[in-house]
Amino acid sequence: MVGPFGGITVATLLRALQDDPRHLADPLAITVNFVRPITPGPFTISTEPTRTNRHTQHWTLTLTQNGIAATATAVFGNRWPTWSDTEACPPPAPPADTIEPAELPDLVPWLRNYEFRFIDKPLDVDAGPQPDSTTTLWVRDKPTRPLDYASLAALADTFIPRIMIRLGQFVPAGTVSLTVYFHADRDLITAHADRPILATARVHHLGNGYADQHAQLWTDTHNLLATSHQLVYFKEPVPT
Amino acid sequence: MVGPFGGITVATLLRALQDDPRHLADPLAITVNFVRPITPGPFTISTEPTRTNRHTQHWTLTLTQNGIAATATAVFGNRWPTWSDTEACPPPAPPADTIEPAELPDLVPWLRNYEFRFIDKPLDVDAGPQPDSTTTLWVRDKPTRPLDYASLAALADTFIPRIMIRLGQFVPAGTVSLTVYFHADRDLITAHADRPILATARVHHLGNGYADQHAQLWTDTHNLLATSHQLVYFKEPVPT
Repeated sequence: MVGPFGGITVATLLRALQDDPRHLADPLAITVNFVRPITPGPFTISTEPTRTNRHTQHWTLTLTQNGIAATATAVFGNRWPTWSDTEACPPPAPPADTIEPAELPDLVPWLRNYEFRFIDKPLDVDAGPQPDSTTTLWVRDKPTRPLDYASLAALADTFIPRIMIRLGQFVPAGTVSLTVYFHADRDLITAHADRPILATARVHHLGNGYADQHAQLWTDTHNLLATSHQLVYFKEPVPT
Repeated sequence: MVGPFGGITVATLLRALQDDPRHLADPLAITVNFVRPITPGPFTISTEPTRTNRHTQHWTLTLTQNGIAATATAVFGNRWPTWSDTEACPPPAPPADTIEPAELPDLVPWLRNYEFRFIDKPLDVDAGPQPDSTTTLWVRDKPTRPLDYASLAALADTFIPRIMIRLGQFVPAGTVSLTVYFHADRDLITAHADRPILATARVHHLGNGYADQHAQLWTDTHNLLATSHQLVYFKEPVPT
């Protein structure tokens, strides 16, 4: 609300690491702290490989634009076949092609870059208060493009602050810190291609001006692509 | 498994910020990346306030011991009265005083520093494979002491890697990255004092050598103190 879509910042930082010739293998995790608003214009990303172990590589990053605007840490690493299981369950959802893409109000520019097919709680600023914050939808890039780690990172931040869903009204709010864990290996991402992603998000607690927010991104074949967690600042309302 | 209890590292980094005269208000979030094992002996923590906004303050930190051993980012900030709700639900649990503290095997030293009253899945290395990873228990410091933000941060990491619960056997594993969101304000922490905390943790996905792990820490009065998320590396087993 005080800067551009946070997802593009996360994706841009991740891509800076992928473009760094020192990088090892693929992303496992990234945490971005949104220090102050980023404005249209030049910026600089500094990347520092803190340490490269046998399987994992740690990074620290900063995005600078008239001072530091974002800080981040990331872990890249090798994946290898091990025992595997998914305990989380994808939310119940009809097939994406049975739901029409939503016609959204032109609230913020980044909404135009995604195709949203809402299953639970369409993005509707006049919906009124809701008893819970869970939103479930099929989402993908618009125009469509094959999934990669950077676009997956951005997709993890396509949920508006849950305080707005709960209150059914616009609330000044913004992400303070965002973490994405990448569960998908490169083969799964390649196989997913440009198909819609089943995404769901909810909050655990809101209060004292802050809320957490948790998202899961699933393929239509019930594979967990990524999970994300964020801390969101919100300005109001004060209790009546 | 290759260093000390990660929780003490998180608590020590957080305390370094609380001891820094430049710090504003109380912790909101901390993310620690475990770069390499920390060994008994001297270490240095460097703290840098990246930016102080009106309500929030961003920090970057490093813990150095023969090179960088951990990196972290943290957000401190003011809390103020706003609309509030908790969507997460505490797990069903009998009162702490109806459960005897567990007599644990002397696997790792840090286990001695906590009192565990297990509700679901006692820590038993011979329990055999389990159908899910959820562990629920009452936990507090031993010897008991009033809760504070640093001890809360450490308590968020008192769950052993879920791969060991699922397989019912020892597996070489360790935390790669850990994030804690502090939902409790200072009044709630003070009121909680030294009473047991209701803690629950589970995994969403395990595979390719990595797993996530999510925990919630509740007061006995059903207030959410903190949530935590971590990415865990595990070495084996390979599929048979």
